[in-house]
Amino acid sequence: MAHKYVYFFGGGKADGNAQMKNLLGGKGANIAEMTNLGIPVPPGFTITTEICTYYYQNNQQYPPELKGQVEDALRRLEEMMGRKFGDPDNPLLVSVRSGAASSMPGMMDTVLNLGLNDQTVLGLMKETRDERFAYDCYRRFVAMYGDVVLGLKPVHKDEMDPFDQIIEEMRKRRKVEFDSELPASDLKELVERYKTLIRAHKDVVFPQDPMEQLWGAIGAVFGSWNNPRAIAYRELNNIPSDMGTAVNIQAMVFGNMGEDCGTGVGFTRNPATGENVFYGEYLINAQGEDVVAGIRTPQPINKAQKTDPNTLSLEETMPEIYQQLERVRTTLDRHYRDMQDIEFTIQKGKLWMLQTRTGKRTGFASFKIAVDMVREGIISKDEALMRVDPDQLNQLLRPIFDPRAKEEAVRNKALLAKGLNAGPGAATGRVVFNAPDAEEWAKRGEKVILVRLETSPEDIRGMHASQGILTARGGMTSHAALVGRQMGKVCVVGCNALEIEYRNHRMMVGDRIVREGDWLSLDGTTGEVFVGQIPTQPSEVLSVIIDKKMDSAKSQVYQDYMELLGWADECRRLGVWTNADQPNQVEVALAFGAEGIGLTRTEHMFFEGNRIDAVREMILADDVEGRKRALAKLLPMQKEDFKGIFRVMKGKPVTIRTLDPPLHEFLPHEDKDIQKLATEMLVHVERLKAKVESLHEANPMLGHRGCRLGIVYPEITAMQAQAIMEAACEVKKEGVDVQPEIMIPLVGHVSELKNQRKVVDDVAREVMERYGVSVNYRVGTMIEVPRGALTADEIAEVAEFFSFGTNDLTQTVFGISRDDAGKFLPDYLDARIWEYDPFEKLDQVGVGGLMEIAVKKGRATRPDLKIGICGEHGGEPSSVDFCHRIGLDYVSCSPYRVPVARLAAAQAAIRSKNKC
Amino acid sequence: MAHKYVYFFGGGKADGNAQMKNLLGGKGANIAEMTNLGIPVPPGFTITTEICTYYYQNNQQYPPELKGQVEDALRRLEEMMGRKFGDPDNPLLVSVRSGAASSMPGMMDTVLNLGLNDQTVLGLMKETRDERFAYDCYRRFVAMYGDVVLGLKPVHKDEMDPFDQIIEEMRKRRKVEFDSELPASDLKELVERYKTLIRAHKDVVFPQDPMEQLWGAIGAVFGSWNNPRAIAYRELNNIPSDMGTAVNIQAMVFGNMGEDCGTGVGFTRNPATGENVFYGEYLINAQGEDVVAGIRTPQPINKAQKTDPNTLSLEETMPEIYQQLERVRTTLDRHYRDMQDIEFTIQKGKLWMLQTRTGKRTGFASFKIAVDMVREGIISKDEALMRVDPDQLNQLLRPIFDPRAKEEAVRNKALLAKGLNAGPGAATGRVVFNAPDAEEWAKRGEKVILVRLETSPEDIRGMHASQGILTARGGMTSHAALVGRQMGKVCVVGCNALEIEYRNHRMMVGDRIVREGDWLSLDGTTGEVFVGQIPTQPSEVLSVIIDKKMDSAKSQVYQDYMELLGWADECRRLGVWTNADQPNQVEVALAFGAEGIGLTRTEHMFFEGNRIDAVREMILADDVEGRKRALAKLLPMQKEDFKGIFRVMKGKPVTIRTLDPPLHEFLPHEDKDIQKLATEMLVHVERLKAKVESLHEANPMLGHRGCRLGIVYPEITAMQAQAIMEAACEVKKEGVDVQPEIMIPLVGHVSELKNQRKVVDDVAREVMERYGVSVNYRVGTMIEVPRGALTADEIAEVAEFFSFGTNDLTQTVFGISRDDAGKFLPDYLDARIWEYDPFEKLDQVGVGGLMEIAVKKGRATRPDLKIGICGEHGGEPSSVDFCHRIGLDYVSCSPYRVPVARLAAAQAAIRSKNKC
Repeated sequence: MAHKYVYFFGGGKADGNAQMKNLLGGKGANIAEMTNLGIPVPPGFTITTEICTYYYQNNQQYPPELKGQVEDALRRLEEMMGRKFGDPDNPLLVSVRSGAASSMPGMMDTVLNLGLNDQTVLGLMKETRDERFAYDCYRRFVAMYGDVVLGLKPVHKDEMDPFDQIIEEMRKRRKVEFDSELPASDLKELVERYKTLIRAHKDVVFPQDPMEQLWGAIGAVFGSWNNPRAIAYRELNNIPSDMGTAVNIQAMVFGNMGEDCGTGVGFTRNPATGENVFYGEYLINAQGEDVVAGIRTPQPINKAQKTDPNTLSLEETMPEIYQQLERVRTTLDRHYRDMQDIEFTIQKGKLWMLQTRTGKRTGFASFKIAVDMVREGIISKDEALMRVDPDQLNQLLRPIFDPRAKEEAVRNKALLAKGLNAGPGAATGRVVFNAPDAEEWAKRGEKVILVRLETSPEDIRGMHASQGILTARGGMTSHAALVGRQMGKVCVVGCNALEIEYRNHRMMVGDRIVREGDWLSLDGTTGEVFVGQIPTQPSEVLSVIIDKKMDSAKSQVYQDYMELLGWADECRRLGVWTNADQPNQVEVALAFGAEGIGLTRTEHMFFEGNRIDAVREMILADDVEGRKRALAKLLPMQKEDFKGIFRVMKGKPVTIRTLDPPLHEFLPHEDKDIQKLATEMLVHVERLKAKVESLHEANPMLGHRGCRLGIVYPEITAMQAQAIMEAACEVKKEGVDVQPEIMIPLVGHVSELKNQRKVVDDVAREVMERYGVSVNYRVGTMIEVPRGALTADEIAEVAEFFSFGTNDLTQTVFGISRDDAGKFLPDYLDARIWEYDPFEKLDQVGVGGLMEIAVKKGRATRPDLKIGICGEHGGEPSSVDFCHRIGLDYVSCSPYRVPVARLAAAQAAIRSKNKC
Repeated sequence: MAHKYVYFFGGGKADGNAQMKNLLGGKGANIAEMTNLGIPVPPGFTITTEICTYYYQNNQQYPPELKGQVEDALRRLEEMMGRKFGDPDNPLLVSVRSGAASSMPGMMDTVLNLGLNDQTVLGLMKETRDERFAYDCYRRFVAMYGDVVLGLKPVHKDEMDPFDQIIEEMRKRRKVEFDSELPASDLKELVERYKTLIRAHKDVVFPQDPMEQLWGAIGAVFGSWNNPRAIAYRELNNIPSDMGTAVNIQAMVFGNMGEDCGTGVGFTRNPATGENVFYGEYLINAQGEDVVAGIRTPQPINKAQKTDPNTLSLEETMPEIYQQLERVRTTLDRHYRDMQDIEFTIQKGKLWMLQTRTGKRTGFASFKIAVDMVREGIISKDEALMRVDPDQLNQLLRPIFDPRAKEEAVRNKALLAKGLNAGPGAATGRVVFNAPDAEEWAKRGEKVILVRLETSPEDIRGMHASQGILTARGGMTSHAALVGRQMGKVCVVGCNALEIEYRNHRMMVGDRIVREGDWLSLDGTTGEVFVGQIPTQPSEVLSVIIDKKMDSAKSQVYQDYMELLGWADECRRLGVWTNADQPNQVEVALAFGAEGIGLTRTEHMFFEGNRIDAVREMILADDVEGRKRALAKLLPMQKEDFKGIFRVMKGKPVTIRTLDPPLHEFLPHEDKDIQKLATEMLVHVERLKAKVESLHEANPMLGHRGCRLGIVYPEITAMQAQAIMEAACEVKKEGVDVQPEIMIPLVGHVSELKNQRKVVDDVAREVMERYGVSVNYRVGTMIEVPRGALTADEIAEVAEFFSFGTNDLTQTVFGISRDDAGKFLPDYLDARIWEYDPFEKLDQVGVGGLMEIAVKKGRATRPDLKIGICGEHGGEPSSVDFCHRIGLDYVSCSPYRVPVARLAAAQAAIRSKNKC
C-alpha cells in the first residue's frame, strides 16, 4: 500500500488522533480526536506535515501518490456531506487551513469558502434562498484567494489592502458604514471588480475550477510555512524549521446564515482565575472573524458570566445548544485533562466544533486548575506539579496593582520607562535618591521608592526602609537585585533610560523630570516604571504566611498553595535551603518551607547599627594587635546575630560564610565622606585617604577578597569562628540543637582551605573546651572559581561540604563581570549569541560542565560529600532541574524563592522518574 | 644472611658505588665510587639511610644486627690501617659525618678525631712526636663531642659557644691572638677544663671508651636529621622528610701535621666561566675547617690561576701532589661526566681525597661546560641540552653590571630597594617619572630610567626610550613586565617600598629621597634597585645577533651559543613562535630563531604617532557612520604595519589578534588631560567626561573587551580584517609569501566566534576579489576564558586554530586579577599556599587541567586543529614542558625568550623520549 499522506475525519470516526500532532499538526490532531469522541466536527481531511517536508526537499513538488489520496478523501467528503465539489446545484464548500505541531497563531494562511465560482454561487443562493449571503461568501473567497494564493498584497506596508480599497470606495459611494449594509447587487459587483483587479495585477484569471482552487490553496499553505513572519516566529520560539505544517481541508459551516446561526470561543475553565466554570463569548449570525474583528461586541456565553443585565447569554438565547456545548466542554476538559480553548459555530441550530487546544492562562489560573484537577480526580499530583510554572507560582506572593488603576495609568501615559524585572510585585511610593533619606522618610511614615544609579552594601538599611528599589545600572544579579530579592522587595534594575542627577535630587527620562518626593510606581513583575501612585493590593498567601493574618488561612488560595507545595515536598529529592543573614529573614524562609540556611553573609551584619565603626577601625589598624582590638568589639555583636539565627533554626543546618568582600567596600570613597569619617575616627584625613587609595583595586571582583582576606588576616577568620562557636555553645546550653556549617569562600587551592580550616578548628576546639559543650560543626567551602572545581578532588580532602557559588563561577567561567555586562548583554541577546542571560539562568554547558566535574571529583575523594548551590541560580527552575540531575543535595535561594525552588525540585524529580 | 646495613670502602674496593645515593647518601656513595676508581680515599664504612628510618620508626633504637655489622667493619678498618680503636700505642682515629641523598650543606653534624682519650692521646703524641698537635686534636674532639653529641650549646642564641668562651679567656690570659699560638700545656689544660664544663652542665663524664664515643656520635648524626634547621631546610627545598641520612665513619687523615701536609678544595673546571682548567685553593699545614674559617688566606692551586706573583701555588710547592691531583680531577671529571667539586687533604706528603660531588656553577659556566663536554666527547648532545637551565641561558643576552662596581655599590649601601625581577639585565640611567619626559630626555642623549606607579599603553614610547623601567605596583605579568620583556628592557616591577610623588618629581624609600635626574641602577636579574650609576658591560651574544657586530661572531661564546641552540632545534617537536607587534621586534625574534608570530596585538599600534587621535574619534563617535569615518583613517596605518610585518616574516605564519582592550584604555582619565583632549578634538569637555564616565568599568578585566567589542562594533573587526587582507594581498603581489592567521580574542561561546568569523570572511572575500589575489588565511581564537576551554569541541567547529591566552586564563581560573594580586601574593608564597606565582609559571593542575580538556575536545572535533600558547608562560621552561606533554603545536613568547623556549622545548622532547 502506498504511504498514507491524507487522514480523513468525519461521521464519528477519524484516521488520526490527538497523539499525532507531529504528523497532523495540532489542529488536525485535535479535530481527529474530537471526531473520535463523537463531538460534532465538520468532516474533512488532513494532509500531513510529511508533505510539507517533501515539498521543500523536492523543489516544491508533491509525491505522485498525493493527488489520488486527496481525490479519494474529497470523494468521501462529498459522499458524507451529500454535496459535490463544483456541483452548481449542491456545491461542497471547504476551508483550507494550516496547522503545525507547535501553535504559530496568525503566522500562516487560511482560505475559506473554497469551491465557490460563478456557477456554484448560484447553487448556494438557491439553497440558502439568500442572494446576499451567497455573494458575500463569494466576494470574501475571491479576496482571500487573491491575497493568500495569488499574492496580491499592498505594495507598501502602510498601504491599505487592495481589496479593502475597493470595498471602502463602495461603502463611500453607498454612504454606508458597514459592509453588511451593502446590498447583494453591490456584492456581486465586488466579485467582478475583484476578479478584474487580480487579472490586472497578477496577469492571471481567477480560477473557476474548484480543483484548481484547492491545489492552489494547498500550495499557498505549504508556501506560508516559509514566509518571513513564520520564520521569524519560529526563530523566536525555538521551533525547528524542518517540522513543517499540515493542511486541513474541512467542509464549510456558516454561523452567518441567520438568527439561528452564530459563532463563539470559550475556555473550559476561567483562564484568568482558574475557576471551574465555563467561560466564553459568542455572536449571533456571525462568522469567526467577526468575533476577532471587534466590530460587534460579543456576548457572554452563560448567565454566570453576565455583568450587564441588558446582554443575553447563549444559555438564554439557545438553551439547548448551550447544554450541548456545556457537555462538550466537560468532555474535552476531562478528556484532555486540561483547560481547553475551543471554537464553535452554530449553523441553522446545529453546533459544530471547529477547534480545541490547551488554553493559555495566568499563573494564578494555572496553579488553581492544577490543584482543582487533582481534587476532581482528573490528573495525578505529579501531573499537577508539572503543570505549574514555578516562576508564575511566585505571583501568588506579590502585592499587585489594582488592575483597573494600572490600565488607567497606561492609558494616561504614566509609563516612564522599563528596566529588568528583578524583584516581582507592585510597589508605590515617593522618590528618594539616597539610602539615609529613605530611612528618614520611612521613619516619619512615608512610603518611599529608593532610586540609585546602583546600590552598595552601605544602602542596605535604606533599601529595607523602601517599598521598592529602582536602579539605572546593573543586571539580574547586581547588588540591588540580589539584596532586593532576598528582602522580598519590589525591584527594577538596569533601567538604562534614567539619567539621575543626585546633586539636583532629580532624574530624567528624555524630557520628563521626576523630582524627590514625586510619586512613582514600580511593577517588579514586568519591570515597568510608572510616574504617579497606583494603588496596590496584598497577596492572600502572604497575608497568612508572613503577616500571620491567620483568619486568611481559610482562604482557598492559601489552602491550595499549601497543598500543592506539600505534594512537591513529597516527591522532591533536593533539599531546599535559603540564603538569609538576619533572624527575621530566616523566619520568612522557614515559613516558606526552607530546610536549612545555605548562605549567611556575615558581612551584611557589618552594616547594622554602629558596627561599621568597629569594622573601619579594624581596617585602619596598623598591625595585628590593632585589628584584634577592633575585632573584639565586633565579636559580641556577631555572636548575638548567630545566636538569633541558631535559635530560629532549631537544629537545622546553618551555613555561615566567613568574610568575603574586599575591605574597601566598608570604607567611604567620596572626599566628603572620607573627611567626615576621619573626624569621627580621629584619624588624619590624609592617612584615611591613603588607606582608601591603597585598598583600591583594578578588578575588585578578582581582588583581595574571600579566603584571601582570612589568609592575610587570620585574626578575622578567628574572630568569626569564635563568634559562631560561642553562639552555638550558648544556644545549645539553652537546650536548642545547633548545626553550624562554616563556609570558606573563594577557595581555588586546597592549601587555602587547609590554612583557614586550621584557624577555625583551633578556635572551635578552644571554645568547646571552655564551654564544656560539644558542637557537631562542619567546615566546607564555596566552589566559585574554576580552579576550585577543577581541583575538587584535592579540596574534598579538607572540605566536608561544597556549595557552588554560581554567581562568581559564572563571572569567572565566562570572564564577565556582572556589573559591567550591561554594556554588551543587550547586543548579545539580540544577536542570539546567548540564548539567555547566564546570570539569571545557569549556563549548563559551561558553568554546569564545570560543576559536573567538581561533583564527580569531589565525591570520588569523599563519597558522602554534601553539595549544594547558593548562587542566585538556586531559585531558578531550569537551574534547579540541572542541580537535581547532577546529584546535588540541596539548592539554596533567597527566602521568597523557596516555594519556587520546592516546586522546581519536585518537577526535576518527576522528570527524572519519567525518563527512567 | 642478615640485611646489610654497613657498607665498607677502602683498599681500592668498596661495597657501594655512586648509584647508591639513596642508600648511602651522596657523600657515602661518592666515596665508594672514588675508592672503586682507585683514587686514594681514607678507608671506612657507611651506615645506610635505612637505619635512620628504622631509628625514627622504632623509638630511636637500632636493629639488633647493626652492632655486629659495625664492629665487623671497624675490625676490618683496624686491620687495613694497622691501628686499633682505643689502642694507647697505635690508636685508630675516625671522623663521623652525616650524608643524605640530597645535599643539605651544614645542616647536620660532624665529629672529628673520634677515638681520642686520655690514653690514646699519648699514643698520638708519641707517634707524631708532637705534643701540641696531639692535644690540639684532643681538645677539638672534646669540644665537638660536647657540642654535637652531648648537646652543650649556648643558652641564648646570641651567647658565645661555651667552649669558645674558655679558649678565648685562655688567649686573653696568654695575650695571644690565635689558638695556634697557645702552647701544648695550655691545650692540655683546655681538655681538662672542657671535661669539667661538660660534667658541670650535662651531669655526665666525658666518655673515655672509644666505642661509647662512636655510638654516641652515630646517634647524634641520626638525631641531627630532625633538628629544626634541617627540617626547615628540607621544607624549603622540597626534600622528603622520610629519606633519612647515612653516617660515614672514616679513618682520620690530618692536613695539619706539618709543612708536608695541607688541605684544599677545587673544581674540575672553572665554576664561574666554565673553562676546562683545574680551579681551586689550598693551605699548607691546615685542616679543612681552616680553609672555611678564613683566618688564613688560601693560595691558588696552580700557576694558571695565580694573580699575585707573591703567592705560591700547589703546583709549585708540591708539584708531585699537584700532578696526582690533576690526574684525579681528570678522572673524576670524565668519570662523572660533569664538573666536580672536590675536597682533599695531604698528610705527610700523601694525597687523600675526602669528597667529590657535582659542583654548583654560574649560568654561563653551566652552558660552557655542557657545550665543551660534547666537543670533548664526554656527554651526548641530549645530555648537554638537559644540563643547561634555560632561564640561565638568557643571562648570556643581558648586559651586566661590572662585578667589581656592583660589589662596591653594595658595600656603599647603595641598595635602595628590591622588587620583582621582571626583565633581566643591568641598566643605569637618570630617573624620570613620566613617559613624555623619558622620550624628551632620551632625545637629547640622556640615559633614563622610567619610574612609574604602574605603566599603561600610553607609556609605551617612553618605555622604549628608557634603559630600564621601575614600577611600584604590579606583578610579573603586569603591563610594565609584559611590555618590558617584549622590548627586551631591564625591568623591575612591584617594588612596593617606593613612595612616588609625581607632583614633586621624586620618590622616597623610607627617609631616602630620589629626585628626577638622579642616577639609578636596576638589576633586572635580581630585582635590586641601586642609587647611583653602576657601569654595565654588554652581552657578546647580543652584539652579534642584534647589533650585528659581526666581528664578534668569532667570539667563542657566540659560537657555543648558536651551536647549543642548533642542537636544541634538532630534537624539539614544539614550534617556537614569538609575540611581537612591530617589524623591528619581529626582526629581533627572527634573529633569535622564531618560526612564526603567535600574537600581534593590534592595539599596541594604536599608540604610534597621532593614530590615537583617530582611535579617540572612533570611540567618541555617536553612530556607526561616525565610527566608520574614524576607522577609515586608521585603516591605511594598520595596513602599513601589517605589510611591514608580512615582509619581514616572508611567508611564516603571522597571528594577528583583533582589538582586545576595553575602549576606556584609549581615553585620558585625569581631568586635566580630558580638558586638553576636548580642546584638541573640538568636543565639549562635559561630553567627553560623560563618555569617559560611561566607559568606566567596575572590573575592566571582565568587561567590554575582546570579541565583545567586535560584536557590538562589527565595523572595528571589519576594518582590521580589511587592513590585514589588503596588506596580505599587496605583499603577495610583491612576490613575498604571506600567511595571516586572524585571531579573535576572549571567545567563550561558539556563537561569538561565528559572528566575528562571518565579519572577517565577508571582508576577506571582498578584498581578495578586488585584488585578484588568493591568500591562504585562517581564522581562529584565543582560549583564555574557562568557558572557551570547556566548550572547545563546539568552538573548534568554527576555529581553525586555538591559542591559549594563559595570562587571562590564569586570572579567570583562579579568579585573581594580576593587577591586584600583589596585595596577597607575598603572603601566599610565604605561607606556601602557592608553591610559585601562577602568573610566572603555568599552574599545571588547574589552568593546565583546563588546557588539557580544551586540547582533547578541540581535536575531537577537528583532529588537525593547530594549537599554541601565546601567554607569557610560553617562554617559561616548566610551562613549555607542559605544553609539549599535552601536545601543543607551538609556544609563542616575547622575542628575547625565544632562545629559552627553544632550549626548553628541546628538554621537553628529551624528557618524553627518556620516559618511553
